[in-house]
Amino acid sequence: MPEKVTIADVARQAGVSRQTVSNVLNAPELVREETRERVRQAVEQLGYRVNQAARRMRTGRSRLLAVRIERTQDGMNVFDRFLHGLTESAAKAGYRVILYSADDDRSEIATFDDLLGAYEPDAFVLTSTHYGDVRTSWLEERGLAFVTFGRPWGTPDGGGHPWVDVDGAAGTAAATRRLAGAGHRRIGYIGWQEGSGVGDDRRSGWARTMKDLSGTTTGDTDGDKSGDTGVLERRTDGSTAEGEAAARELIAAGATALVCVSDSVALGATQAGVPVVGFDDTPVAAAIGLTSLSQPLSEAAACCVEVLTGRLDAPDGGSPGDGPPDHVLLEPSLVIRRTA
Amino acid sequence: MPEKVTIADVARQAGVSRQTVSNVLNAPELVREETRERVRQAVEQLGYRVNQAARRMRTGRSRLLAVRIERTQDGMNVFDRFLHGLTESAAKAGYRVILYSADDDRSEIATFDDLLGAYEPDAFVLTSTHYGDVRTSWLEERGLAFVTFGRPWGTPDGGGHPWVDVDGAAGTAAATRRLAGAGHRRIGYIGWQEGSGVGDDRRSGWARTMKDLSGTTTGDTDGDKSGDTGVLERRTDGSTAEGEAAARELIAAGATALVCVSDSVALGATQAGVPVVGFDDTPVAAAIGLTSLSQPLSEAAACCVEVLTGRLDAPDGGSPGDGPPDHVLLEPSLVIRRTA
Repeated sequence: MPEKVTIADVARQAGVSRQTVSNVLNAPELVREETRERVRQAVEQLGYRVNQAARRMRTGRSRLLAVRIERTQDGMNVFDRFLHGLTESAAKAGYRVILYSADDDRSEIATFDDLLGAYEPDAFVLTSTHYGDVRTSWLEERGLAFVTFGRPWGTPDGGGHPWVDVDGAAGTAAATRRLAGAGHRRIGYIGWQEGSGVGDDRRSGWARTMKDLSGTTTGDTDGDKSGDTGVLERRTDGSTAEGEAAARELIAAGATALVCVSDSVALGATQAGVPVVGFDDTPVAAAIGLTSLSQPLSEAAACCVEVLTGRLDAPDGGSPGDGPPDHVLLEPSLVIRRTA
Repeated sequence: MPEKVTIADVARQAGVSRQTVSNVLNAPELVREETRERVRQAVEQLGYRVNQAARRMRTGRSRLLAVRIERTQDGMNVFDRFLHGLTESAAKAGYRVILYSADDDRSEIATFDDLLGAYEPDAFVLTSTHYGDVRTSWLEERGLAFVTFGRPWGTPDGGGHPWVDVDGAAGTAAATRRLAGAGHRRIGYIGWQEGSGVGDDRRSGWARTMKDLSGTTTGDTDGDKSGDTGVLERRTDGSTAEGEAAARELIAAGATALVCVSDSVALGATQAGVPVVGFDDTPVAAAIGLTSLSQPLSEAAACCVEVLTGRLDAPDGGSPGDGPPDHVLLEPSLVIRRTA
């Protein structure tokens, strides 16, 4: 590996601080002529290539993609896999990932603003989209480039901005069919409270498949709660404890197998002794032998980078709204283990 | 929340692209006089505060801390907690975290170089320190600011550079004492292969405590393998499968309880039916009721930021080697669950 000359090498050679070298390169008027000359000689002797960051400033491109790091709840999420994939894909495309944290939409928007002022990221990658998501409209109004990992829930046209997501409904449908294939007909569903786009999506795959199985494949699609499925469904706060309680209630109501909205809930449900499928293929699923749905997170991250760089590298500078929107829906895969 | 004016607002107001606004601000010679004037008027009308990034360039400070995102192995690590803590602590101190990935020391050093050329991070946070770690000497030779989360293993004086770490030996000692307090005397240890600083450290707490328990509290500290402890120890590749095999061998050799180097190994060991303590308090430990040692990762991350900002904000510009080195060793805590 050829070792490039750094600002610290120049500082050592010239016998000055890094700060002084930086001043000579960026604000020479702050530095005495004698010192300036010494630093310039060192730059020349060492062959220091001046300040790519400054060059990038001049091009108006920071080569930074900003993404929020999610707070770990019970640790049973897979966001770190997405973030690793994003970091790798971004680097291949010549970008780096800059992190921020935020507790809610409003503090996230305040952080957008702070980041734009201080670092000028070329684009944002938003995660955990939800109904009434004000973050995306804030970015759209300002013509800023972004992609969401997660669909724009609650917008009838599927949202005009670029997004990448995993098809949760296809996942729970596959899980339900798998259990039906093993002879189960009364397959229960343990979900989250209403109001979660991801939760509603995952529920819909089970409900649709149950309707298909019961032979009522025609008719309105809003009738999911009619007939058997209403009895065979419980909503929870997402905790393992409520997952176990819900499983016992559903089994008492006649369920012989369970599809769950998450591995956390499924972990509780496995205590009730019937076949169970979880969602997210967490390390816990692998540890306890839980059959679970795995999201293709590296692929999702790569798609996010591809969608963004396609726009950023467009000749007009890549404001969203130009060109067709990019909407990518990936399929999860069922990882079969002991519980189903 | 007062909404700040962004470069996109200026672009819209002036009817030009963001690129053009950036050019006017940073390389006005590239822009026609008429356009320049239009952008300048928009800047004035909107009260756009010119380009903090450019200001930061002039101060020679990027306000970026670079950290590697670790590859998830079996997912049973807790790096995401450290990274979240680092992002939050850095933001409070006025810094942001920029991510990179790397497969080995040499590719990481190449990435240092690339980052320094393109983004000029003010400092690096290195994780997963190990014997013969060439990354730290590379950074030290160049006078670059950094802190390691992890001790400089194999350097007799404990290393001159700043580091923050968690006292693994204190953790396994506490675990061993806990099992001894429950009446166990033949307490086995399941570790990793030799050559891991972290592994050797965790092993030493068990070995030292076993020696204390056997009454041979005096004598050389290198004699850990004499007497009982050698029989009661197995080294593994860190997998759950080898953890289970090792546990069965140790129980056959008379062990009545087990201290493990990781939750992955401990997960296997729990199959053998004796009390087990793991290490890292992963979500899997919580899920299966595994007693485990928890690292104070938010605190460790906060310490890393504190050590760095103490140096970066020093009057001389903060080259390492000035002032006393900062070495912070934190205690893990034992999270008691069903298995011990």
